[in-house]
Amino acid sequence: MGKLLETAALASEILDHLSIEVKQLKEKGIEPTISVIVVQGDPASECYAKVKQRIARRLGIRYLLTFVHSQVTETELLERIKWLNRCPTIHGIILELPLPKHLDAARLAAAISPEKDIDGLTPSNKLACFTGNKGLYPATPLACIRIMNYFGYTLEGKNVTLIGHGETVGKPLVQLLLRENATLTVCHKYTKDLRMHIEKADVLITAVGKVGLISADMVHRNLIIIDAGISETKNGIMGDVQPEVAEFVKAMTPVPGGVGKVTTMLLFENLIKAVHLQTSKRKREVDQRESL
Amino acid sequence: MGKLLETAALASEILDHLSIEVKQLKEKGIEPTISVIVVQGDPASECYAKVKQRIARRLGIRYLLTFVHSQVTETELLERIKWLNRCPTIHGIILELPLPKHLDAARLAAAISPEKDIDGLTPSNKLACFTGNKGLYPATPLACIRIMNYFGYTLEGKNVTLIGHGETVGKPLVQLLLRENATLTVCHKYTKDLRMHIEKADVLITAVGKVGLISADMVHRNLIIIDAGISETKNGIMGDVQPEVAEFVKAMTPVPGGVGKVTTMLLFENLIKAVHLQTSKRKREVDQRESL
Repeated sequence: MGKLLETAALASEILDHLSIEVKQLKEKGIEPTISVIVVQGDPASECYAKVKQRIARRLGIRYLLTFVHSQVTETELLERIKWLNRCPTIHGIILELPLPKHLDAARLAAAISPEKDIDGLTPSNKLACFTGNKGLYPATPLACIRIMNYFGYTLEGKNVTLIGHGETVGKPLVQLLLRENATLTVCHKYTKDLRMHIEKADVLITAVGKVGLISADMVHRNLIIIDAGISETKNGIMGDVQPEVAEFVKAMTPVPGGVGKVTTMLLFENLIKAVHLQTSKRKREVDQRESL
Repeated sequence: MGKLLETAALASEILDHLSIEVKQLKEKGIEPTISVIVVQGDPASECYAKVKQRIARRLGIRYLLTFVHSQVTETELLERIKWLNRCPTIHGIILELPLPKHLDAARLAAAISPEKDIDGLTPSNKLACFTGNKGLYPATPLACIRIMNYFGYTLEGKNVTLIGHGETVGKPLVQLLLRENATLTVCHKYTKDLRMHIEKADVLITAVGKVGLISADMVHRNLIIIDAGISETKNGIMGDVQPEVAEFVKAMTPVPGGVGKVTTMLLFENLIKAVHLQTSKRKREVDQRESL
């Protein structure tokens, strides 16, 4: 039986660290605040928003959860985002996805102020992730790297096979993994010989969202698997990897209890980063005005 | 003996097409103009600038070649770039690289107006390349894809091994190859088993700049090689692949006479794109003013 990379301890370690940071900010008179917009109609996005709400409460973070009706227009949402951008007591903005089809998710995400964009979806944060510059990176890719580090697995020089290169997880992971000096193979639905690419891998990261894509006959004893695929099913949350695969590999993150748990924490880590970005920006502006 | 993928015919095809476009623009009263800044001191960059000058002359493109002394300050160069950005009769700006060490190439490149940035080096063009949005992409990565298409080799579902992920060639190629639906493996100096990654590849693209990195014993009969590595040596321009490798593979681009030739043409293709971007932008501005 391979090692199950349960992330509860890591998540609680991050939580403890964040609690201290929140406390320190409050002592300085700053109350970290996140505004979450949920367009009604998708049960999963309502559920995600509530999971985060529980953690925010534990951390002492102000969490403004707004449900808007499913017929909301893009203009109305844009107005709301612009207002949140301007509001100095709100530090993080999340627009819960997926959105109804009449709304353009990319355009709406791009309207969020980059230093409040804790999901890392705005063009300037995407560019930062691409170039390696400072910015707010998306939490799921960060969680994959963090879990590897936490369990003492190095990525430098390792053969890493990544399945899926979607906008929010796979694509940013490509950049992060290359910066870790992994030899990276990116597979997807056009890949003909997925088994071969898993066979020669030291690490397999899946980010597809297809339940049970990876079966026991596709893996090997020396493989470490990070399962970043998440699907809602009638039996609960399921990953891209069949649970029994854990028996046939070196180590594997479970779903639930793996990548998702850390992702949520890193979202709040992004919020604290966002607070610092905004306070140092405001300080610079004040300094400039005083020096005039 | 494998097929030598000589690109002279492709380059001349692009040249013919560009000549027609230049003629059409001139009939409309637009004279496509490129401004090339060479900071003196690097013989290679002076040489590249002159190669482009010859082609510009053949195409009837106005080519403003400016040599500046090697002690030029960053502020002076920034001022010059800003002036070129504002000048409506200049459509493309090239800052020839490498620059002397006292100048920050990234900061200078970022100062170029994105719609005049025919080298694709500004942040907004990098982002466009990353996301797949419209923009001016760097010419060498585009040339690699164009050569594959020209010779009738598809990339979809193929195993492509790319060596090197530098800023100007490798990194943008990662994005372009994934958009072509290639199964992509990215290797670099930390890769432990380069031979294995070449062995399972249908296509090998090198973008390292290390003369003779790939030798005959590393390749196989079914391999297609695109050599995008270019090094100046006392024996002339050399690629990453030893020339005799051509005998042991399916097909291979020579150096010189391969990627470089097409790259230069695509730089001028970018210039024509830049002209269209600027004229349509100006038209929009006029329309807006008139509608007020």
